[in-house]
This record gives sequence, structure tokens and C-alpha cells, in this order.
Amino acid sequence: KEESRKTRRLTFTFDDWKRHRSGSRYLYHLKTLAESGIVRGIAAPVAWVTAFTGVVAAFNSAHAARLLPPWLPPLPAIALEPMQLTSFALSLLLVFRTNASYSRWDEGRRSFGAITTTCRDLARQACSWFPSGPSPQQQQQHDSSSSPSSPSSSPSSSPSSSSPCSPRPHLARWLVALGRSCVVHLREEHRLEDELRDVLQPQELAAVVASAHPPNFCLQMITWIIRTAGLPQELVMRMDENVSRLTSSLAACERLLNTPLPLSYTRHTSRFLMGWLACLPLCLWSYCGPAMIPIAALVAFVLLGIEEIGVYIEEPFSILALEKLAGKMEAAIAAMLAERETIQRLVTGNSSSNGNAAAAAAAAPAAPANTNGTTATGDKPAAAAAPPLTLGSSPLHSLGATPG
Amino acid sequence: KEESRKTRRLTFTFDDWKRHRSGSRYLYHLKTLAESGIVRGIAAPVAWVTAFTGVVAAFNSAHAARLLPPWLPPLPAIALEPMQLTSFALSLLLVFRTNASYSRWDEGRRSFGAITTTCRDLARQACSWFPSGPSPQQQQQHDSSSSPSSPSSSPSSSPSSSSPCSPRPHLARWLVALGRSCVVHLREEHRLEDELRDVLQPQELAAVVASAHPPNFCLQMITWIIRTAGLPQELVMRMDENVSRLTSSLAACERLLNTPLPLSYTRHTSRFLMGWLACLPLCLWSYCGPAMIPIAALVAFVLLGIEEIGVYIEEPFSILALEKLAGKMEAAIAAMLAERETIQRLVTGNSSSNGNAAAAAAAAPAAPANTNGTTATGDKPAAAAAPPLTLGSSPLHSLGATPG
Amino acid sequence: KEESRKTRRLTFTFDDWKRHRSGSRYLYHLKTLAESGIVRGIAAPVAWVTAFTGVVAAFNSAHAARLLPPWLPPLPAIALEPMQLTSFALSLLLVFRTNASYSRWDEGRRSFGAITTTCRDLARQACSWFPSGPSPQQQQQHDSSSSPSSPSSSPSSSPSSSSPCSPRPHLARWLVALGRSCVVHLREEHRLEDELRDVLQPQELAAVVASAHPPNFCLQMITWIIRTAGLPQELVMRMDENVSRLTSSLAACERLLNTPLPLSYTRHTSRFLMGWLACLPLCLWSYCGPAMIPIAALVAFVLLGIEEIGVYIEEPFSILALEKLAGKMEAAIAAMLAERETIQRLVTGNSSSNGNAAAAAAAAPAAPANTNGTTATGDKPAAAAAPPLTLGSSPLHSLGATPG
Amino acid sequence: KEESRKTRRLTFTFDDWKRHRSGSRYLYHLKTLAESGIVRGIAAPVAWVTAFTGVVAAFNSAHAARLLPPWLPPLPAIALEPMQLTSFALSLLLVFRTNASYSRWDEGRRSFGAITTTCRDLARQACSWFPSGPSPQQQQQHDSSSSPSSPSSSPSSSPSSSSPCSPRPHLARWLVALGRSCVVHLREEHRLEDELRDVLQPQELAAVVASAHPPNFCLQMITWIIRTAGLPQELVMRMDENVSRLTSSLAACERLLNTPLPLSYTRHTSRFLMGWLACLPLCLWSYCGPAMIPIAALVAFVLLGIEEIGVYIEEPFSILALEKLAGKMEAAIAAMLAERETIQRLVTGNSSSNGNAAAAAAAAPAAPANTNGTTATGDKPAAAAAPPLTLGSSPLHSLGATPG
Amino acid sequence: KEESRKTRRLTFTFDDWKRHRSGSRYLYHLKTLAESGIVRGIAAPVAWVTAFTGVVAAFNSAHAARLLPPWLPPLPAIALEPMQLTSFALSLLLVFRTNASYSRWDEGRRSFGAITTTCRDLARQACSWFPSGPSPQQQQQHDSSSSPSSPSSSPSSSPSSSSPCSPRPHLARWLVALGRSCVVHLREEHRLEDELRDVLQPQELAAVVASAHPPNFCLQMITWIIRTAGLPQELVMRMDENVSRLTSSLAACERLLNTPLPLSYTRHTSRFLMGWLACLPLCLWSYCGPAMIPIAALVAFVLLGIEEIGVYIEEPFSILALEKLAGKMEAAIAAMLAERETIQRLVTGNSSSNGNAAAAAAAAPAAPANTNGTTATGDKPAAAAAPPLTLGSSPLHSLGATPG
Repeated sequence: KEESRKTRRLTFTFDDWKRHRSGSRYLYHLKTLAESGIVRGIAAPVAWVTAFTGVVAAFNSAHAARLLPPWLPPLPAIALEPMQLTSFALSLLLVFRTNASYSRWDEGRRSFGAITTTCRDLARQACSWFPSGPSPQQQQQHDSSSSPSSPSSSPSSSPSSSSPCSPRPHLARWLVALGRSCVVHLREEHRLEDELRDVLQPQELAAVVASAHPPNFCLQMITWIIRTAGLPQELVMRMDENVSRLTSSLAACERLLNTPLPLSYTRHTSRFLMGWLACLPLCLWSYCGPAMIPIAALVAFVLLGIEEIGVYIEEPFSILALEKLAGKMEAAIAAMLAERETIQRLVTGNSSSNGNAAAAAAAAPAAPANTNGTTATGDKPAAAAAPPLTLGSSPLHSLGATPG
Repeated sequence: KEESRKTRRLTFTFDDWKRHRSGSRYLYHLKTLAESGIVRGIAAPVAWVTAFTGVVAAFNSAHAARLLPPWLPPLPAIALEPMQLTSFALSLLLVFRTNASYSRWDEGRRSFGAITTTCRDLARQACSWFPSGPSPQQQQQHDSSSSPSSPSSSPSSSPSSSSPCSPRPHLARWLVALGRSCVVHLREEHRLEDELRDVLQPQELAAVVASAHPPNFCLQMITWIIRTAGLPQELVMRMDENVSRLTSSLAACERLLNTPLPLSYTRHTSRFLMGWLACLPLCLWSYCGPAMIPIAALVAFVLLGIEEIGVYIEEPFSILALEKLAGKMEAAIAAMLAERETIQRLVTGNSSSNGNAAAAAAAAPAAPANTNGTTATGDKPAAAAAPPLTLGSSPLHSLGATPG
Repeated sequence: KEESRKTRRLTFTFDDWKRHRSGSRYLYHLKTLAESGIVRGIAAPVAWVTAFTGVVAAFNSAHAARLLPPWLPPLPAIALEPMQLTSFALSLLLVFRTNASYSRWDEGRRSFGAITTTCRDLARQACSWFPSGPSPQQQQQHDSSSSPSSPSSSPSSSPSSSSPCSPRPHLARWLVALGRSCVVHLREEHRLEDELRDVLQPQELAAVVASAHPPNFCLQMITWIIRTAGLPQELVMRMDENVSRLTSSLAACERLLNTPLPLSYTRHTSRFLMGWLACLPLCLWSYCGPAMIPIAALVAFVLLGIEEIGVYIEEPFSILALEKLAGKMEAAIAAMLAERETIQRLVTGNSSSNGNAAAAAAAAPAAPANTNGTTATGDKPAAAAAPPLTLGSSPLHSLGATPG
Repeated sequence: KEESRKTRRLTFTFDDWKRHRSGSRYLYHLKTLAESGIVRGIAAPVAWVTAFTGVVAAFNSAHAARLLPPWLPPLPAIALEPMQLTSFALSLLLVFRTNASYSRWDEGRRSFGAITTTCRDLARQACSWFPSGPSPQQQQQHDSSSSPSSPSSSPSSSPSSSSPCSPRPHLARWLVALGRSCVVHLREEHRLEDELRDVLQPQELAAVVASAHPPNFCLQMITWIIRTAGLPQELVMRMDENVSRLTSSLAACERLLNTPLPLSYTRHTSRFLMGWLACLPLCLWSYCGPAMIPIAALVAFVLLGIEEIGVYIEEPFSILALEKLAGKMEAAIAAMLAERETIQRLVTGNSSSNGNAAAAAAAAPAAPANTNGTTATGDKPAAAAAPPLTLGSSPLHSLGATPG
Repeated sequence: KEESRKTRRLTFTFDDWKRHRSGSRYLYHLKTLAESGIVRGIAAPVAWVTAFTGVVAAFNSAHAARLLPPWLPPLPAIALEPMQLTSFALSLLLVFRTNASYSRWDEGRRSFGAITTTCRDLARQACSWFPSGPSPQQQQQHDSSSSPSSPSSSPSSSPSSSSPCSPRPHLARWLVALGRSCVVHLREEHRLEDELRDVLQPQELAAVVASAHPPNFCLQMITWIIRTAGLPQELVMRMDENVSRLTSSLAACERLLNTPLPLSYTRHTSRFLMGWLACLPLCLWSYCGPAMIPIAALVAFVLLGIEEIGVYIEEPFSILALEKLAGKMEAAIAAMLAERETIQRLVTGNSSSNGNAAAAAAAAPAAPANTNGTTATGDKPAAAAAPPLTLGSSPLHSLGATPG
């Protein structure tokens, strides 16, 4: 059952929507009945209810046929009326509880979406606002250190990746690291080292892994990079608003993970439902006879199914496609870094390469490296190369261009 | 069925509201029964349910008339009671699911509306804040390039459109491009090239089409244009707040498109409904006899209809009038550019043309070009001409002045 | 019916609330039954249902009395059970749809309220921040024009209203114009010229009337006035945040006006209800006999009434008291301009007129003009005169001091 | 009934919560039945329903006993079925309407809470940001006036209260005045003069009382005080954001007071309920006989009670403890002014009074005046004295230290 | 019962979620029936209802067996119909009331979560923005005081903790104090002195304890620290936005604590329920006979349980794990201070310790003190030592690294 949650992580495309809406969905839903995670989740309790109903039916039949010792009393028959009077409260409770779980699921989706969106927004701001070279503040410190520039760890990084501290790709790397460490933080499946190995440099990786709260560590790195990028204070403010939004979106995710629905709510609903289903065969026998066995099974299936859905989606992160969302964010950031040069040329007046600019622009996302030859400005290679972010062999890369 | 979704894209006017509220709407709703997309969508399952009910009725009648071989057992009769006990949960589940879909639809409408509104707001800010000539920063780069100004691609552009990089119309063009590329991004009907051909210049068009995520590309262009317009940093901040809002509204639209309601919710509702409807004839036979065939058809119609509506509006973008909304936004931006001169004259004190200012203002939106002669200030033609945005032959243009 | 909507536009006072809560409201509701817009709206369909029930009753009675030709079959009798099974879904659908309409109504009220509130907030900022004379930027342009100051069009303007471009009253006039043009934009009753004639100057009026989207035009004017008022950039930012809020509140109103609830939702509810009501007499005959005629009429009345309310409040602007709200906003702005001098004196230390300041302050809102004599500071008359906003003869003026 | 609303204004403490949760609450609820405002509110209509049921019962009994003239027809008996079919819609309508009223009540509580919270926030900002002496701008104007400083009106003000225009206590006084004038504005019980007499100086009081909209007047005063306090523009912006929030919270309160729920909604619910209750005895007679009299009374009690609650809480301000909330806000502001010196000493390094600082700090809120001797800095007495805010004899003062 | 609330304060981990979702939860819920706080809370009223039902059953049995004096009338039998007609309204009222309580619980969790999140965000900003030494403003005042630096009270503070007023750890201490004083403020269990003793210095502690409203006092301290830290005004604005958010989150918590749901709502629901349950045995006797005793007990259990949940979660703070949340916040702030040096080294280019930086970074959170030897920069020890926040012996410390 826990394994089945992993297969639920999907994102919809236009074709999925068409299938979702098509008239043949009813057939499809019946065909996939056996594979449903919900159905497998409630198989056991439905079987219990059915077995209990069978026992009641057998006992009652045997009693009616006088096969039982005469001193055994018949099973009590519950009148329909109290069942009716409470069926309403039961249904309301079930559906409201499921609705509260749905709100949690929706908020989880929204909050993680806000993380990726805000990362994209920070990357957008950095692409247009950050100066191209290292900031003066960094320059100073960098000069005084006079160390050889540490080689980038990513195998796809071109050797011309001059300064590891050029703030734009630096920020982009840490935004990607933030996304992945959030995924690791909200799931228990991945190892942080494996996820971040191709994004961060070894010493950065060691620091993140050793930190008390990896996403917080990334947020602090991002704050520092923004602060030392040499921007005017107003733009630092704007970017810091986005960092604050990241903090609170992450906190919303943690809140959902920390705090279930009030347990008394969940448990009372569950006990109410089990008690009601246990009374059902005693009530139905006089109305349906042995036919009550499939009927009780069906009733148990639909009502337990509603309750199971409520529990199933209460913790949203293990059924959301977090990896795909983070992957899309990475692809978007990589595209921004790659397209930056094209945009700059379009804005500043199509200076020297008017003829082949369109072609170059068209080629830019596909092969950002080969534009280095045509442009002679000094600071562009750093941007276009964007070393650790090309994510060449990552399986997430192919998601970047899908629209939905 | 998928085709019918295209006809749903409408916006209401005052007259539509009057018809919507009029007492004759009940008749109208009955008359349009056959054309309803919902009715056509559920025609097949309603037919199945009716056919199944017919078979049950025929079998039971034949059995009662002893036309069937005697070893065939009669169909089991389901008591009404379990149907009643579950009808409540079924109705609640159906209506809550439809309500959750409605929330998605509403959020889709809101989010796309926020995109167009924020574009209008950015255009408003640009009209009043952007300096009229090219910004100094651009001027510099422009001078160093010393290229002939690339001719604007739009056929309606007047030859006096001096600098292609004058930031105000430049931003306006990209806002329009953003709106259209969002429409293309959220639907799968249009081709991006066709939509943007009359807005962007060829090289810009090529760059957008080649980009990984066209709306993101437009957002980056807008960020660059704002940054290089030579505004004070405080106003850059204000405009960037709007760009961040665009980013998050777009992300909200993508979220709706990516993530359906939890599939287990949808499927359990559908299975519950089909199972319930399948039991219905077995239950109704003893109460209604053969009259149950139309009754079961009616019950199936209303309940399947509720479920179908829930599925129908779950993905909102293919039934919303996105093109009309984007068209209104374009008309509003075009009007802002055209009325800018009038406003400037009204604010700065009706300098030299006190007598005919009102007449000129009245004529401004209709024929912005002919005011060029009366004003001698150097920077105004660029604004009044607003080359690629007059959208002369666009079918969207006529929507601009409708109020609602 | 459309006319009756106009009488619904009311605002509540303390006494209205007391009557609203009083124990005699039940009687009052019965007495006003015949005047209710809802009742008149559903009179026709209720009559149809009653007539149809009467026909069914007559046919069945005649059939029972064997007055009809014997080859006529009796009308089919529908069992109560399917009615019961669906009454629940019907009620839920009706009430949820009405609730969705109520949300729209509430949002309409909120959005229009946000427009007036934000206008008041802008006026508050302008009253305290704007310099008293024309801003330097304007001064320059004004001097170079050297035109005679255009005479203010309002008949109530005192001749000492020096510069038409003094930014404070200028902004106030356009805020009032914005409120009124929003009312005109969201209703189809008023003519823009008539509404704005006593607020704007002729050339301004001509420009607004000729513009493509009058509220947008006002928003642009406001943006320009703020920009050219000579404020520090930080305060321009603050005021522009309010202008952005105006833009989005206006867009929310337009969205409500543009987009009804999904039509399939409305229509399915209506069809479900009409079908259910048509089956009702066939079902009730065996339970109630001819007494079913008033019963069916009552049931139709209550259920159709719920549906009618949903449709009635779906488009909120024609039943909201927009004019009164805009009028209150105007009165508040006029009061702010009039009380400005008093406030300035209170803040800056009660300089020379310590004795009679309280008396003057008390008299200020009643007769702002006669304080001109006692103060000798040069810039105050412009503020205290506030020419076109005194709204002396406007019927809206008397609303300003009512508390709720 | 209107009087009983005044007793509803309470705030909960920890002990109240314990009693609220205790198992003996059911008994308590029964015991207080007679004192309940709701019960008294619905006593009359419940009595009518009971009387009508009694008449029906008497008539039917008499008819059955043939005591009536034989030409009198028996009362018609309504079948249970139509009652059942509509009871569901009735319950939904009642509960949804009550829920909509609850949303209004909740929003009223939130909005008024936002007013007090924002006032506290403004006081917090003023305490730490405002310079201690009069701002240069004021100083200038103050010098030129050369008037004797007007004596503060509050009897508890120490004579050392130097300048009436020192911005910090000035702002604090007007924040208190804003809170009280909002209470007066949202209720009709108090007189503004009585409330503000011990807060404002006579001329200020006269100006507020004479103004068209007292809370607006206070907001303008606050805006002016902030503007003239000599802060950097960025901090003026921050404080003005809070003033804008005050404006919109106040507008939200006014909106609730102005606009009831759509009257057609309220009236249709009321009519539906009265009609349903009127049919009830005709239906119950055949099931219950004369026992229907108490039964109908009970049913009327519970259903009318739900409707009454909806009406009762629809206008929230006359049942909310606005005075207590405003009083807490005043106590918090007074404490902030009193504790300011302690905080300043803690932040700036515990300069000369290391030993007795803790003792002094402990004594500060109780007796702020006696710390004047130990500190020799010139600007502190003005802050510590905080003349008109000590609120010595105010009954609200004792609420300041209670936690909840 | 009040004691049982303390055991409800839990946060979920991944394993808890797995158990929460597992198929064996139904058994677990039955096993824990006797320990449930809800069950114990409703034990008494359920017992009453059962006893009353038993009395009714005994009386009716005795009456039927003619054991009672013949002049005693039989107990009246209530028909099922009025019970049915009202069971719907009762269920709706119960579930909506419980839902309203759930909204309060959710808001309480959100608001307290917002407090801790905003504190973390302030610490993040301080770590990257605050200068390392004391600010110039403080320096001045500090020099003039020339007092010996007051020894830090925390036993774990290293003696090298130079200045008690270095703004970064100063702010961190007060953020922690704010969190703890909020916990004390929203509960009545803890003593403020005990909670804050290991965080604040003695004189600070005395001042907080003596203040009228401790959380407000902390907020003011934080405002002062930010103001005097020597930041540019734009960053002061950003941090003050967070302080305003703290103010309003705290006010939201206080609002929930102050204001229960409208008491008339709670009481009417309770009275309705008790009346309905009292009528139940009179109604069930004719349907169920003596079997009605367990049935009535079950019905009372489920309905009273729903009401009890609504009351149980109405005041959220005594069942939320506030201490754990505050503890996590403290651990996060401590980690930020500890990791600050690592981050600074990573950002500014890995200057002199390229080889062992990764190792040092890995060791940093575990033993921040031993990095002092390797770095020679003057301002770092103050940050790395972070004296009063290491919280060495605090039981809260071990929570820092848990993910959820």
C-alpha cells in the first residue's frame, strides 16, 4: 500500500485531460478497479464486514432452520429507524472529513508549487539584475585570497567557467539545491547526497549535508549571495521578499507534514463508521435475507472508500509529483540562464549580429555552448556556459519543454 | 464532445444577463436540452443504464409470465433501505466533488484574469513613468552598435517609428506577446508563430518560438525592459512586484493544468455512482414495475449530469474565453498608448491648444495618428504612433470598448 | 422584474438593523409577500406547475369517476421512492448553487467597496503629502505655456481657485470621477456625461467620454497626477500600490460582470428542478388526492424560490447600492479637503489662533469658505476652497455624515 | 431583546474555557434556557405555532367527536411525504444562512481586531522610531508661534509634560482616539464627546466631534503626525502601510454594517420556514394525535432557533466586546510608552545603573514616574510621563494585563 | 479531562504517517476506545441518556406487564416522523459547528506557525545583514558608559563572548524569548521566569517579567535592536515587515483565545441535541422494544461525540504542541548562528582553508567552538560562539534535526 503511493505521482497533459473527460471513463474506472490503491487499502476491512455479515446470515439461517441448539437466542434485529436517523450524520461526517483532507492536499500542492514558482522568480530577477562579473565586494575578498579557483565538480562544466562565485550561476545552483533538498526534506525516500551531487561542489555538498536543516541552509546561502551581489538596496529588498515567501511556503509544507487533522476527529469518524457497519447486517436481515451479504459488502465498500480517500490524501507529499515539479523548475532556470544572452541582445538593440541573431536565438537553448564563438563580450561565456546547471544527463531535463 | 467545449467560451453583456434572469429561462433550458454539451456527454452512460433497466424489466416480466425456463432463478430484488442509506452519501460526494471542480474553474478564471489585469497595470505604470526617448543606458549601447534601426515587422507601423527600443511601446508589445503566449501555453489549439506574427519583430518571434517556455521568455524580456528603462529604483521595485504577480498567476494556471483533483476521489465517486445506478432497477422493480425504465433513465440523467459537470469544468482553460480576455487586454493597452498624449496635456495644463484640445481628445482613440501635426514636441510621435499595437485588422480590436 | 432590481439597492442603518432583528419580522415577511421581487419572478413557473398539477388531478379524478373514454389509460403513478432518492441531490444542488451565487454577490460588494476605500485612502495620502502649491515640474510647464488659467466649470467654485492643476483638488476630482465612471461602467443605466458634468472640466469630460474605457482613463490620469506632484519616490510607490489595488478591484468587478457561473451548472440545476416538479403530481396523487394541488404549488414555490434567489444575486451590481457607496466616498473626500486646514493647525501647534481654533474647527465642515479670512498663510485657500468638490446641490451630499 | 445584546459582549479567559469544555455544560445549558436571548427572541413565534397547533388539534378532536356542526369539513390532512421531501431543503437553507451570518460575525471580529492590532503596531513603530524631541519641522513652526504650551486636558498629566506636540505621545493619543471613535461609529450607544474627553485636548475634541466622519478625521491626524515626525521616507512608507490597513479594516466594518445579507435570501428562508411550520400540524395529526402539540412546539423551537441565531449574529458589532478590545489596545499602548525607557536602556548597554536597573525595570510599569530621578537624559521625561494616556481612573485600565 | 488535553500535543513523523494510513488503523481505533479523551468526555452524558432510556424501557415493560398501578398513564409514544424531519437539521448543525471549530483549530495552528516561521525569517535576515561588530550607534553609547561588560547568564557561554550588545546574538536571544513568552501567554501552565531564565540576562528577565504584556515587550526589544543595528533603511523596512507580521500573528492567536464561537450557536446546538436524545427512547420503544437501550447508547455516543469534538478543538492552544514548535524554531536559529561562518566562507570564495573547509563545515554544527582556532578573522568568534543560544542541556535541542 505504501508502495502504491509512489505510482500516484503524476502531472496531467492535454491528452490526459481528454482521456479524463472522455465518455469511456466509466468503463476505464471499472476496469482499473482491481489496481486502485484505495480498493486495495480497504480490501481488508471490507472483507471483515462481509465475513461478519456472512456469519450473521449463517447464524440467522441456521436458527430459522432450527439447526442450532434451542437454548441459543436469535440474533437481535435492529430496526431500520436508528440506522436511518444516523446515516445522515455519518455521511456528513465522512464527506466533511474527506473535504478537510482535500484542503490539506490542495494546500500542499499550492505550497510546494509556491516554492518552485518563487525560485523561478528569483532566477528571473537574478538574470536581469545581477551584474555579470563578480561583485566588487566579492572581488575584493577573492583577490585577497589568491587561491586557485576551485574546479567545478560537475562533469559537464566547460573549463572556461571562470569564477565559481559569479553570482548569477551561483544563485541558480543554490536555487536548484533548495528545490531538491525540499523534496528530500518532505519525503523519506531520497538521500540528500545523491540528489545534490551533480549540483553543488564537494565542499558545499558537505556543508549542506552536515547542516541541521538543509533547506534552511540553502535559504541562508541564497540570502548571502543576494546580499553580496552588489545590487542597490531596493532590489535586495525585492529579492528578499521572495526569500521570505520561500521561507513561509516551506514552513507551510512542514506544517502539513507535522500536524495531522485532529486525531479525535479522524478516530471518531472511523469508530462511528465501524460501529454503523457492524450494526448493518443485524438490521438488513429482516429486509433482505441472505442477499444482504453482497449488499453489505457494497455499502462497506463505498463508505469505507470515502474514509480511506480522506486518510489517503491527508499527507499530500508522498502522492504529489514533487520530483517532476522540481525538475521543471530546474529546466526553467537552466533555460533562463541559457536564453539570457539572446534577451540581452534583443533588448539592447541587436548590435552586430543582426542577420544571424534569430538563428542563434533559435539555436540557443539547444546548444548554448556554440554561441561563444560569435560573441566577443567578455562576460558572456560565464552566463552562457552555466556550468553545473546544464543537467545534461539528468532524467529531469526532458521535462522542461512540456507545457503543462 | 471536445469540440463542443470551444463553443462554451463566452463573456456576458448586460443583455445576456437580462436573458439569463428572465422568467422564460426555464423554457429556454428545456429547448436547448438537445444541444447541451453535458447532455451529449452523458448520453452514452444514460443509454447503458436505460438499456440495463430494460433488460431487467424484460427478464422480470418474462419470469413473472413464466416465459423463461423454470430453472432460471428470478433476479434478486434489492430492498429500498440500503439504497436510501447510501443515497445520502452519494449525493454529498457528487455535489462536493462538483464544488471542488467549481473552485478550480473559478481559480482558473481568476488567475488568467490576474494575468491580464497585471499586464494592464504594468502598461499603466509604463505609460506614466517611462521616459519618452530611449533610456540613456540603451542609448549608449545603441550608439556603439551603429546599426540601421531594424524595420518594424508590423504592416501598420508608420515609418516615423523611430527607435525600435523606445521602452514604452517595446514593453507594450511584449505584454501583448505575453498574453497571447499564455493562451497558447494553456490551450493546445493555436500555433505560437501565428499568434505572435503581427506583434513581434521577426528575430524576436524566432527567439520566443525557440525558447523552452515562451511565457517565461516574455517575462524575462519584460524584466529587462523595465530594468533598462532608466527608472528610479523605487519604481523598478513597484513594476517588479507586478512582474512577480504575473509569474505567480501563470504558475497558478499551470498548476491547475498539471494537477487534476486526486484521481482516487474522482474514480471512487464514479464507481459509487455506477454501482448505485446498476442496483437501482433491481430495487425499483417491486415498487414501479415497467414504469421504472423512464424513471431510472431520469435518475441516471440527473445524477450522471452532476458528475459530468464536475468533470467538465475541472480543467477550466478549454472552456474559458481566454482569447477574448487577452484581446480586451490588448485593446486596453493600445488605448492607453493612444490616450497618453491627451492625458499628458490635461495634466500639464492645456498649454497651447486650449480650444481644440477637447476635440482632439475626443478624436484621439479613433485616429491617433492625425494628432501628430498639431503637436510639435519631439518625443510624442513615438508614443502616439505606437506602431505594432494598433492591431488594425485584428478581430480582437472591436472588443475593446465593450464594457463587461 | 428588471425594474424591481432597482429598488433593492439599500444600505442599512442602526434602525434598519433593529427592525431586521425584531420579533415581528415574520409578520412583516408575510405581509410583503406580494411585493417580493423573488415571488414575482417565480410567479409564472409556479403557476405552470400548479396548472399542470390541476390537469393531472382533473384527469385522474375523471378517470376514477369513469368520465373518460375507457380506452384512455390512467396516468402512470410514480412511486415515492425515486423522488425521495433524488430529493436530496436536488436540494444540495440548489443550495450549493445559491451559495456560489452568494459568494459572487459578496465578492461584488467587496470589490466595489475596495474601490471606494482605496480612493479614500489615496485622498488621505494626498491631503497630507501633496505640497500645497503646484509642483515644480508642473510649474515649469505651466509657466512655459503662459495661458490664462482655464476657468473651472463647476458653478460652485469660488473665483479664488487659483491654479486648476494644484495637485490635491485635481486628484480629488479625478477620484470622484473614477468612482462615478465605475458606477456607469458596471451598470447600464446612467450616461457618463450626466454623471461627470459637475465634477470635471469640459475638456476633461470630453476626453473621458471619448476614451475607450473611462475608468482606465481615470486611473491613468491619477497615475500622472501622482507622478507629477513632486513627491519623493517612496511615497509615489505607496500611492501607486493603491492605484494597483484600484486596478485589480475594478478588474474583479469586470470579471464578475463578464463571467457567469458555468452555464451547464445553472442549466442542469434548472432542468433537474423542472423535471422533478413535473413528476411530483404523478407521485403525490396516490398520497394526497386533489389536496396535492396546493401542496405542489407550495413545494414549487419554495424550491423555485431557492433557484430564483441564486439567479437573482448572481450578477450583483444591479442590486447593490453603488451610487450610495460612491456618494459616501465623495462626501468623505470633500470632508478631507475641507478639514485639512484644521488638522494642519492641530498638528503644527495651534499657532496664532489658540482661542478660536476650536470654534473654527467646529465650523469648518459646515462652512469651509469663511475660514479664509482668519488665516493668512498663502497656500491654504487653495485647499480650503476645493472648488468642484463641495457638491453643494448634489443629492449624494447628505449621505456623508450617516454612520453606517 | 435589543437590551440582551449588550450582555453578550464578553471575552474568554482560561477559566471560561475550562467551564466551556467541562462535562457539566449540558446541565448548565438547560439551566440557562430561560435567560437565553435566542429563546426569548423566538418565544413569540414558537407560541404562535403552538397555539395554531392547539387549534388544529382542538378542531380535529371536536370534529372526530362530532361536536361540530356537520356541515363543517374536516381539516385537510397533509401527507408526510411532501414534508419529508422539503425538510431537507429547509434544513440546508437554514444552516447555510446561519453559516453565512457566522462568516459575517467572524469577519466583524477580525476586522475590528485588525484595527486594534494595527494601532498597536503603529505605536510600536513610533516608540522605537520617532525622535524624542519635537521634529525639526514642528520645532520651526512651534518657535514661530511662540504661544504658551497649551495645558493638557487630562487630569492625570504631570506638569512636566513639556511640548504637546512631541510626536510620540501625540500619536499615541490619536491612536486611542481612533479606537474609541471606531467604537462609537459602529455602535449607537455612546456619545463621542464623553468617550474622548479624557484623551484629547479641548480644541482637538471639538474638531473631532465636528468632523463629518470622526474615525477618518483621526486617520488624517495620524497621517499628518507621521509625516511631520521627521522620519526617513522608508519608515514613513512602512507606517503608512499600517494606516492604509486601518483604512481598509474600518471600511470592512462599515461594509458589514451597511450591507445585510441579500434580503431575498433572508425572507425566503423565513417564509419557507413559517409555511412549513404551518403545515406541520395538518400533517402530524394523523401520526401523533394531540401529542403533536408539544412535538410541534419542539420542532418550532429548534428550527426557529437556527433561523434566529442567523439573524442574531448577522450584525456583529452590537454583540462584540468592542469596548474591551479597544481598552486592551489602550493599555498596550500605555505600557509601550511606559516601558520605552527600560527597553532603551536594555538595548543601549545598561550604562550607568547596572545594579538597580533590574529593580527599576521591574518597577517601571507600576510607577513610571519615579524613574525620572535616576536618569538625567533630557528627552526621557517626556516619554515616561506620557501624560494623557495613563488612564488612571479608567475602568478599562485593569484589563491591560489579562492574557487572553 | 483537562489533563488529557496535554497528551494531545504531538507532531507527526514519517513513521507516524505510515501507521496513520495503515490498514490496521481500524483495530487500533477500537483498542484505544477507552483511552480516548473524547470518549471520556462524553461518558457522563452518554450514561445519562442510557439510564433515561433504561427507565423508559423499564416503565414501559412494567406497564405492559400491568405491574404498575392502573391509574398511571403509559408514557407517550413519539412518532418517528418528527424525529426524522429534524434529524437532518440536527446533523447539519452538529457537523457545521464542528467544522467551524476545526477552522479555529486550523487557524490557531497556522498563526502560531506563522510566529515561529517569521522568527526564523528574522534570524535569517539578521545573520546575513547585520554587521558583525556592534553598530556605530551602539558603539558610541557603549563607550560612554564604560561599564564592565555584564557577564552572560547562560552557563554554556564561552568567556570570549565579547559584547553583550552585538546585535546578531542579541536579536536571536530575544526571538527565542518571544517564542517562549508566546507559549506562556497562550497557555496557563508555565511560569515565565522558568522559561526565560536560560535565555535572557537577569535584568532583561526582570524587565520582561514585570512588563504588562511580555510578548509585546519582546516585540519592542526586537524593533529597537533592528533599529539600532546600523542597517540601511530599506533593510530595516524589510525586517519591520516581519515584525508587523509577528504582531498580527500574535493578535490572531489572542483573538482565538479571547473569542469563542457565538455562545448562542453552541448552546442551541447542545440544547437541540439533548432534547432530541431525550425524545429518542419515547420514539424507539415501539420499534425496538428493550433493544433500544444499547441502540440509544450508540446513537448518543456518536452524536454527542461529534458535539464534543467541536467543543474540544474550539480552543486550540491547549492541544497544540506549542513547546515543540517553539523548540524547533530555537534549534533552527541556533543552527543559523552556528552555520553562519561556513556560509560566509562558501560565499566569499573559500579563501585560505580550501582543503579542510569541507571537513570544518561538516563539523560546524556539531562543534562550533573548535573552529575558532583555524580562522583568524576578528569578527567571527562572536558569531560562532553565540553564547546563550547553544541550549546545551535543553531537552528541546534534540528536536532540531528531525525533518517534520
